[in-house]
Amino acid sequence: MIMSRIEAPRDDVTGNLTDRLLAALPAEAVLTDPDVTASYANDMASFCPAGAPAVVVLPRTVEQVQHVMRTATELRVPVVPQGARTGLSGGANATDGCIVLSLTKMDRILEISPVDRIAVVEPGVVNAALSRAVEEHGLYYPPDPSSWEMCTIGGNIGTASGGLCCVKYGVTAEYVLGLEVVLADGRLMSTGRRTAKGVAGYDLTRLFVGSEGSLGIVVRAVLGLRPKPPQQLVLAAEFASAAAACDAVCRIMEGGHVPSLLELMDRTTVKAVNDLAHMGLPETTEALLLAAFDTPDPTADLAAVGALCEAAGATQVVPAEDAAESELLLQARRLSLTALEAVKGTTMIDDVCVPRSRLSAMLDGVEQIAAKYGLTIGVCCHAGDGNTHPTVCFDALDPDESRRARESFDEIMALGLELGGTITGEHGVGVLKKEWLAREIGPVGVEMQRAVKQVFDPLGILNPGKLF
Amino acid sequence: MIMSRIEAPRDDVTGNLTDRLLAALPAEAVLTDPDVTASYANDMASFCPAGAPAVVVLPRTVEQVQHVMRTATELRVPVVPQGARTGLSGGANATDGCIVLSLTKMDRILEISPVDRIAVVEPGVVNAALSRAVEEHGLYYPPDPSSWEMCTIGGNIGTASGGLCCVKYGVTAEYVLGLEVVLADGRLMSTGRRTAKGVAGYDLTRLFVGSEGSLGIVVRAVLGLRPKPPQQLVLAAEFASAAAACDAVCRIMEGGHVPSLLELMDRTTVKAVNDLAHMGLPETTEALLLAAFDTPDPTADLAAVGALCEAAGATQVVPAEDAAESELLLQARRLSLTALEAVKGTTMIDDVCVPRSRLSAMLDGVEQIAAKYGLTIGVCCHAGDGNTHPTVCFDALDPDESRRARESFDEIMALGLELGGTITGEHGVGVLKKEWLAREIGPVGVEMQRAVKQVFDPLGILNPGKLF
Repeated sequence: MIMSRIEAPRDDVTGNLTDRLLAALPAEAVLTDPDVTASYANDMASFCPAGAPAVVVLPRTVEQVQHVMRTATELRVPVVPQGARTGLSGGANATDGCIVLSLTKMDRILEISPVDRIAVVEPGVVNAALSRAVEEHGLYYPPDPSSWEMCTIGGNIGTASGGLCCVKYGVTAEYVLGLEVVLADGRLMSTGRRTAKGVAGYDLTRLFVGSEGSLGIVVRAVLGLRPKPPQQLVLAAEFASAAAACDAVCRIMEGGHVPSLLELMDRTTVKAVNDLAHMGLPETTEALLLAAFDTPDPTADLAAVGALCEAAGATQVVPAEDAAESELLLQARRLSLTALEAVKGTTMIDDVCVPRSRLSAMLDGVEQIAAKYGLTIGVCCHAGDGNTHPTVCFDALDPDESRRARESFDEIMALGLELGGTITGEHGVGVLKKEWLAREIGPVGVEMQRAVKQVFDPLGILNPGKLF
Repeated sequence: MIMSRIEAPRDDVTGNLTDRLLAALPAEAVLTDPDVTASYANDMASFCPAGAPAVVVLPRTVEQVQHVMRTATELRVPVVPQGARTGLSGGANATDGCIVLSLTKMDRILEISPVDRIAVVEPGVVNAALSRAVEEHGLYYPPDPSSWEMCTIGGNIGTASGGLCCVKYGVTAEYVLGLEVVLADGRLMSTGRRTAKGVAGYDLTRLFVGSEGSLGIVVRAVLGLRPKPPQQLVLAAEFASAAAACDAVCRIMEGGHVPSLLELMDRTTVKAVNDLAHMGLPETTEALLLAAFDTPDPTADLAAVGALCEAAGATQVVPAEDAAESELLLQARRLSLTALEAVKGTTMIDDVCVPRSRLSAMLDGVEQIAAKYGLTIGVCCHAGDGNTHPTVCFDALDPDESRRARESFDEIMALGLELGGTITGEHGVGVLKKEWLAREIGPVGVEMQRAVKQVFDPLGILNPGKLF
């Protein structure tokens, strides 16, 4: 629809979108070649429809973003904000005729303050770049999604990303103190603060975190930092059943331990990792639990947790002897999704989070769903958080298998809700789960959320078709 | 205005407010005696106007709260939600003819789960009661406002309360995972989750935290808990200037230490505490810094921090030898506000939070403001957070002194904003600071916040006249 606008004559009454954008953006920041713009159509989710962008813009300044939004408002053109497009829910997928607003060129770290323990950054800063930069000051930016080497802080804010460290350090939301946001009409709004605390007015900062680009464009963020903790030490424990591993998780958390990560890989995942990377993980295990501590005395903590694993029935408990061994175990975990992708060529990665006391019931249910649909579903979990990633492996060229994959994926979400959980612990709703959002939050919740959306985006131009 | 409604004949077309309320509330839950209702008019803030409530209701169930809100919506009667009325900004002050909705009778702890590390509570649970209850399970609910023995969780959620522990453990907002909220029209809405993580839809939970009862009535909360840390050990350090004490604070935080509290009392405060409680604190000091650690080896941490204090010019550094000595030092800090109140009979307690790198400039500025207005202004701070409580001591019967008190109070907020801070770190805006909110968040922020308010409270009946 918008495409036809672009091809309309220059004297068209609405003007030409590209020309309007070029009035305040340099030529290299406005991409219109359809081959190029098509490459910005998708994030990394399966089964999510995506449209053809009319134009991709790559602003470098706040003023340029304001110009884009003013133009979009005037012409009623939808805007899809994007970071590195590593998302797993289609939240960054283009819609037909949209402006793709890629924030990747706004990638400056503007300030790092060790005394105030904050960093001020532009949205396009890559997570790993920030992590490394603050590390030089003895600081730590915890949120570490699997895609941390590629994904951007703006994208992390959009989806309220998590990662391996959340069990101790929480998710992105915990680290966003203040924002500068370009509103749908191009106005600039500041939210929050650069102080450690602050309660002046409604917490619009948190409202924007996880809003998937549907309320405004984050152009600057004040992030809280922590002092860099000691190097973590990892323990691996093997179990003869997933239930026993989940029992260990409950004992560890009930025992008052604070691991810096607590991850679970099921047999399918372990085998997939071995097949991919020949890491020599124990394939006889039904569940491999990784626990880590970054405390002053991690060896003592690992010993205590190892004893709890044994009490829960671990068949073998192997604490890493040093950082290098620890890193190897973590590599195995980090390879899980890639390894599962290799099983059948395509995956759908679910992101159901349940109360950790229900983790065992969740894993049990996923196994039944896999059997019912005749599919391979590998599960790796941020077990300490109850956040599971059941990963449906399928051949996308096989229509029947694809259908079963989608059905099993949905059934996993239903199971999560039944167990008192949420459809998404850290990946967001995007396109993939929008029918499920309503099931989780109910009609009153949907009504109020839509009304909030209406406040910030009265014309409905900001990432339309996502969330709701 | 509403009072006249109550006195109107029973066949009045709008019906009688009290009768309507009594249709679903027992007689003892509906208070109309003006002497009694007047006692619910105020929280603990000075200089905040309060009106006469038409009626005070004390519901015990969610259904009763829904009935109150339906009635209020039908009759267009304002509703002022209240906890223990320990607030310091007038946020719980009645407006003329309002329904005071006191949640203090909804005081059940519904669930404590050590595995899931959550508690589910009603809003009237007293902070200390929850803290003690979870402690029996080896758990810890950190937020500890000074009023923790009296204040309620609902009130804490309303103001996003802080306390001494925030420097390590964060504020109330960090611990609220999910809410049940009765909306202005009486409908019930669930927000958030009972899982460790969750990003399904906009974060309405956080929007309600700190909203001062202006968006809906919190009737149930899922709170996150931590494992109970070891007993903390406290160190006291004396300084010959506030600037040196602030330098120590910066060195401690820059050095990567994570104290469980880091508090500063100025000379005025120290003297006031001695005068009140004869605690034998060192009156020659210009600033007393208290640092605590609840780590596995607090003695080592205190030694490191003591050395930093000495490097910053501390004249004396005294680590407590045990928990009892530590508790005495904390008592001195906790008595500060009461002690300052005794100086002239009345206080205005400011709550300006600045980046901790600007703490010294803040204290210096407050001293100049005190001199300019010829007033005693004692300062105690959550120094590790940069959250200062300059406390203006004055004689409320002296009109000129009262005027100067109010002016100095405002000047302190202006100074805080100038230093990149916020007008309120943890006490909220209420009535006291509502003109200042606009100065802090700017016209676009105010416009968007008002629009959000409009979504949840289209008739403007929820705690009117607060925040904006």
